[in-house]
Amino acid sequence: MVPTFADVQAAAARIAPHAVRTPLVEAPALNALTGGRVFLKLEILQRTGSFKFRGACNRLAMIPQDQRANGVVAFSSGNHAQGVAAAAQLFGMPAVIVMPGDAPRPKIEGTRAYGATIVEYDRVREDREAIAAAICATRQAVLVRPFDDAGIIAGQGTAGLEIAEDAARFGVTLDEVLAPCSGGGLVSGVALALNGAGATAKVHSVEPENFDGMRRSLEAGVRVKAPGGVLSIADALMAPIPGEIVFELAKGLLAPGLSVSDAELQHAMAFAARELKLLVEPGGAAALAALLAGKIEARGKCVALVLSGGNADFAVNLR
Amino acid sequence: MVPTFADVQAAAARIAPHAVRTPLVEAPALNALTGGRVFLKLEILQRTGSFKFRGACNRLAMIPQDQRANGVVAFSSGNHAQGVAAAAQLFGMPAVIVMPGDAPRPKIEGTRAYGATIVEYDRVREDREAIAAAICATRQAVLVRPFDDAGIIAGQGTAGLEIAEDAARFGVTLDEVLAPCSGGGLVSGVALALNGAGATAKVHSVEPENFDGMRRSLEAGVRVKAPGGVLSIADALMAPIPGEIVFELAKGLLAPGLSVSDAELQHAMAFAARELKLLVEPGGAAALAALLAGKIEARGKCVALVLSGGNADFAVNLR
Repeated sequence: MVPTFADVQAAAARIAPHAVRTPLVEAPALNALTGGRVFLKLEILQRTGSFKFRGACNRLAMIPQDQRANGVVAFSSGNHAQGVAAAAQLFGMPAVIVMPGDAPRPKIEGTRAYGATIVEYDRVREDREAIAAAICATRQAVLVRPFDDAGIIAGQGTAGLEIAEDAARFGVTLDEVLAPCSGGGLVSGVALALNGAGATAKVHSVEPENFDGMRRSLEAGVRVKAPGGVLSIADALMAPIPGEIVFELAKGLLAPGLSVSDAELQHAMAFAARELKLLVEPGGAAALAALLAGKIEARGKCVALVLSGGNADFAVNLR
Repeated sequence: MVPTFADVQAAAARIAPHAVRTPLVEAPALNALTGGRVFLKLEILQRTGSFKFRGACNRLAMIPQDQRANGVVAFSSGNHAQGVAAAAQLFGMPAVIVMPGDAPRPKIEGTRAYGATIVEYDRVREDREAIAAAICATRQAVLVRPFDDAGIIAGQGTAGLEIAEDAARFGVTLDEVLAPCSGGGLVSGVALALNGAGATAKVHSVEPENFDGMRRSLEAGVRVKAPGGVLSIADALMAPIPGEIVFELAKGLLAPGLSVSDAELQHAMAFAARELKLLVEPGGAAALAALLAGKIEARGKCVALVLSGGNADFAVNLR
């Protein structure tokens, strides 16, 4: 059930024809600010505008040919939705996506543009998992979970494999790697890949303050739910608790988790636009927010930040 | 006087400790639109937010130690200004920059932030070259020309060297390379580097319609001035005629030149922000504008576009 490094390597081979080999690039503006060397993994340039395409593409590629006709179902606030929809379109499979009605319009429109059928639900009152399960049963379709799935985790881990490859190519030994965390598929996959590739970097999850289930779980040693409550502007990072498979992996691989406030996320988005010329959505800016807010000491260190998605409603988020 | 491929290689070694090794990245959104494979050279991620740092850094590194104390003088609408100011700061040299008063505020502020002294002039009524020459004479400083200088051209050419390296790493043979063109330092340097690296790609300059001196000159076989007149939104691309050294090089290396309207530039900037998550300034978007406007046939081809700068006043340019 828990993916291995070999699963990440297999995922990399599976998604190579479809996914963008996103760059790792040094940011002088962040070097100057921190006194370290800061590298950005630009998953905003990934197909569909976020890393989620990696996991979705890998997971769908693992569905046997004779089970593909009934298609796939997913629930998602938007980036997993687009990842699954785009992968389904590439593989010629129908896709139904259950999305919260308050998801950013570009995410809903993007998902529809990849040919998926959208079912909207109320994020606060309704249970998206139940809705998705019912659709799956009716259509005999495959449920593609957003994070708690070995194929998804291995797919997201390919980003970590590329970070390790590019750091080696630059002759850089990374000390710290920060990745945004919702259910934890990305950060655990990246940690698995880096570890398997022989990297010694500490890998930190970064979550919104009220949705810091991973941070709390790592501290407790068991899965603990975050308080939730006031919704974060990071619409992509509101899973209250890490996945079971995710945490099985994460607890042995991750350094202590970090959390950031909405104000810190907003500052990071504005910094990215002004200084880095990059449009990063609130959740995608979590690792940058943690660095800018001084949640890790970067002086004299080599740090990589995953900028995990760029599908913001910038009319709303960059006022 | 005219730089050679060896000069580009020497420039690459000189600037390596200071410049960002910017990525070449494939853009699925552009592949889908064009039916080709489209790669973006992200010079918006270069130190100072544009490729101009490459040439400036190389040129300043070529000034002998015993001539550095009096510093450098440059005239520029903004990106060369920042490139020279940042390189001067790195080398501990004073810099005076002559800039048009209507340059985007971020460019003027950016230049000042690198420690340079700014002298503003009127783009329409005053002669920036005369102002700069007078300052040079008074201070016994070195004039760093924006394009018509072998050291500058070789420095800009390092972007082409990296395009060739990355294309080879991806196993891609480029058919066409498009680069924005003002005085032509970038596009001629890129063509020199690609040619020297054994690439067979056709290299096209892209200019604003009223400032298409390179296109006209390539057609005529001799340097011809563009009509000018109505200012373009591409504040970085308003040189009316290619440089002498530039054209000596360009006439043997470049494919026919292209030109784009302000509306095409504006559309390209908006497309870059919405679909590519990248903030590109008007002039920096010229190559993308040419592709989107169908000025080259990309179907079935591998195309690289240089996104040369990101220092827009987005409050003005992305209304």
